[in-house]
Amino acid sequence: MRLSTYFLPVMRDTPKEAEIVSHQLMLRAGMIRQSSAGIYSWLPLGLRVLKKIEQIVREEQNRAGAHEVLMPTIQSADLWRESGRYDDYGAEMLRITDRHDRDMLYGPTNEEQITQIFRDGVKSYKELPRNLYHIQWKFRDEVRPRFGVMRGREFLMKDAYSFDISAEAGTVSYNKMFVAYLRTFKRMGLTAIPMIAETGPIGGNLSHEFLVLAKTGESQVYCHADLLAEALPDEGDLTDSELQGVVDRWTERYAATEDKYDQAEFEAAVPEDKRVSARGIEVGHIFFFGTKYSEPLGCKVQGPNGEMITIQSGSYGVGVSRLAGGIIEAFHDDDGIIWPASVAPFHVGLINLKAGDADCDAACEMLDRELAAAGIDVLYDDRDERAGAKFSTMDLIGLPWQVIVGPKGLKSGEFEVKNRATGERLSLSPQATAAHLKSALADVL
Amino acid sequence: MRLSTYFLPVMRDTPKEAEIVSHQLMLRAGMIRQSSAGIYSWLPLGLRVLKKIEQIVREEQNRAGAHEVLMPTIQSADLWRESGRYDDYGAEMLRITDRHDRDMLYGPTNEEQITQIFRDGVKSYKELPRNLYHIQWKFRDEVRPRFGVMRGREFLMKDAYSFDISAEAGTVSYNKMFVAYLRTFKRMGLTAIPMIAETGPIGGNLSHEFLVLAKTGESQVYCHADLLAEALPDEGDLTDSELQGVVDRWTERYAATEDKYDQAEFEAAVPEDKRVSARGIEVGHIFFFGTKYSEPLGCKVQGPNGEMITIQSGSYGVGVSRLAGGIIEAFHDDDGIIWPASVAPFHVGLINLKAGDADCDAACEMLDRELAAAGIDVLYDDRDERAGAKFSTMDLIGLPWQVIVGPKGLKSGEFEVKNRATGERLSLSPQATAAHLKSALADVL
Repeated sequence: MRLSTYFLPVMRDTPKEAEIVSHQLMLRAGMIRQSSAGIYSWLPLGLRVLKKIEQIVREEQNRAGAHEVLMPTIQSADLWRESGRYDDYGAEMLRITDRHDRDMLYGPTNEEQITQIFRDGVKSYKELPRNLYHIQWKFRDEVRPRFGVMRGREFLMKDAYSFDISAEAGTVSYNKMFVAYLRTFKRMGLTAIPMIAETGPIGGNLSHEFLVLAKTGESQVYCHADLLAEALPDEGDLTDSELQGVVDRWTERYAATEDKYDQAEFEAAVPEDKRVSARGIEVGHIFFFGTKYSEPLGCKVQGPNGEMITIQSGSYGVGVSRLAGGIIEAFHDDDGIIWPASVAPFHVGLINLKAGDADCDAACEMLDRELAAAGIDVLYDDRDERAGAKFSTMDLIGLPWQVIVGPKGLKSGEFEVKNRATGERLSLSPQATAAHLKSALADVL
Repeated sequence: MRLSTYFLPVMRDTPKEAEIVSHQLMLRAGMIRQSSAGIYSWLPLGLRVLKKIEQIVREEQNRAGAHEVLMPTIQSADLWRESGRYDDYGAEMLRITDRHDRDMLYGPTNEEQITQIFRDGVKSYKELPRNLYHIQWKFRDEVRPRFGVMRGREFLMKDAYSFDISAEAGTVSYNKMFVAYLRTFKRMGLTAIPMIAETGPIGGNLSHEFLVLAKTGESQVYCHADLLAEALPDEGDLTDSELQGVVDRWTERYAATEDKYDQAEFEAAVPEDKRVSARGIEVGHIFFFGTKYSEPLGCKVQGPNGEMITIQSGSYGVGVSRLAGGIIEAFHDDDGIIWPASVAPFHVGLINLKAGDADCDAACEMLDRELAAAGIDVLYDDRDERAGAKFSTMDLIGLPWQVIVGPKGLKSGEFEVKNRATGERLSLSPQATAAHLKSALADVL
């Protein structure tokens, strides 16, 4: 992509309305713009990140055997009256009256709707287990939206719903999502710690929040230090008991958000030198609630002996748009964002120090083509701008690699290759530059 | 994908509430379920089609140089008051009051919002031209929603917006979208005819609707028969004058929807044996409206001599979710849907006539793996079901190719390969089956 034809409205100054660093950087880097309080438009650079995050979430859901669907944003209030939840959400639910005076709402979550779809579509125990998920915009009318996409009103969430014949089978489904979440966040470069959590308006009595530690996190969290270094399960399929083993390893040590925290319990469970007390950002939340929705909505299947069995369910959320902010909270410095390669909007920023110079242009275009052919996304700064502005824009938007091409380097046949995270710079021939980047980015191509 | 673990709730009988064939078939084939009047959930099979359509639209927008963004569904009413359009939409606009009693709305289109974003992000004529698009759910509160996703209330639309320094430059942007639309619909197997159209609440005085001819179309259309056979421009980039040439070729012959139709004009322009009068489905609509939004919203850039120039704009819509229905209207028979390969949810339906039989299972699994490795999407019916039910399900969901594997064929080392569109059947060895499918599907892989 040539920057001269792109839409990247970066801002030099930190916008006053933004309190936390991810919000500031997303505005400055031209990723988002506020539309109204807690509601944002995603500009081209931001949308590329959002799509990469979404795709990682999707791949790990599919790998766990879940099937993607897409439910609408607007739901009928009647369905929520059936479950008894119409009032639970209070003023946070955006309530709407359509032109025929029917009560509608902008879905904050979809337990009722998916239970209805499943109830109408499945008749026999043979069609279980199933897990259906969607990645759709939700709305929660926060009293005081803030922190940009981290606590917006309109936000993109992945929510999955499991359907099982028994509580035991439901536990397997829960464990599958638990492990899928560990893998999902890891692929984004994040260490997310599962913690016992409150179930709130979703319900049920088994629930884990996944939290990423970051100074600006909205919750205080407490956990055993060893959890931060806990190894992830391999990529292969796991048996039910292997799954349980992974979940046990991750849950046997103390980890709780402030809602569930008990000082005495924490101190009894964790030796003093292993006690971590930090701020955390919630990036996922999973629930097992059994028959909470299937019972009132009559979601049953016929069992092996003809008996009717009420379905056991759980739900599993990932804050997709929130993650864009969460990742920046975890990865930035004074100059800007430092994207993990897996979610970077482009892999490489190519800076032409003398756009319009035939040799510089030709060298840049050749590298651009070669990297593109290898599946590497390049943002090519071909603008007629001073070098300083180009460098600071590239540092701000945080692409993992920069390649700097100027007349001086070209004379000695060299490009400068900069690693955004470490600041390390190499002088490499054009061929070596391409080879170096292909090798460094091999994991994410 | 194994059907035994998939979620495909097909229906044997035609649902009474569905008036037209695409709605009937989408319900029967387990593609969608109604959530409330004019609002649908997309089940796994339907979502796969929706995503393929969306991706073709995206690729052709990108090829035309447009940049993808994503604006929110909920907008502030104030912005629409600035353009004076808050009242134009009347009861079709879903109006919402948030918890702080602010007037909001569910966007039916985004001219105001994108103009605001562009105004705030671009300062100089050097940053023009630009085209920004998004693919987002919209809401229009139709009095009488019907025909399934063809006239729903919540629907997925691609809307692009061009920004130019002059009306002449704006025409080039308009022409680029015109040609991108011809290519987009063609890739879905559709012949879409551009027709002079009313501009309605979008505004402006230059507008074309793109209509697909189908018996169940909602509008009466009139055109010159030669348009149905008009050749498409090549894939390469076109110069501005080549673009104009393509647009001229497509617009010099008579083509109008009933709103713009004039019998005398039609008969004067088209010889009797070339007069086509038919039903059409609108799948795209493009507008050039100059300064209609940039003027009230103050969207200006600095020109080469320091003067402030008001931007010239157009907008360009494709009905993404509606196309799923439109394609079925164009491609079906008494047995079900007949997907063009480019938008088919899977390319191949693999039918195991004796699931559980070791030889049949092994033969199916080997083919499934080989096709998957070639990028071919296979829906593998591995269920313990009678053959008749398997055949009718496959015909109903309309995958372009079927492969039927049974003990009898296996004895002579042959699979049966069926072309869904022509009904043609071939007996081929496993190797020849894979080769045949790879070659037949090469265009869409």
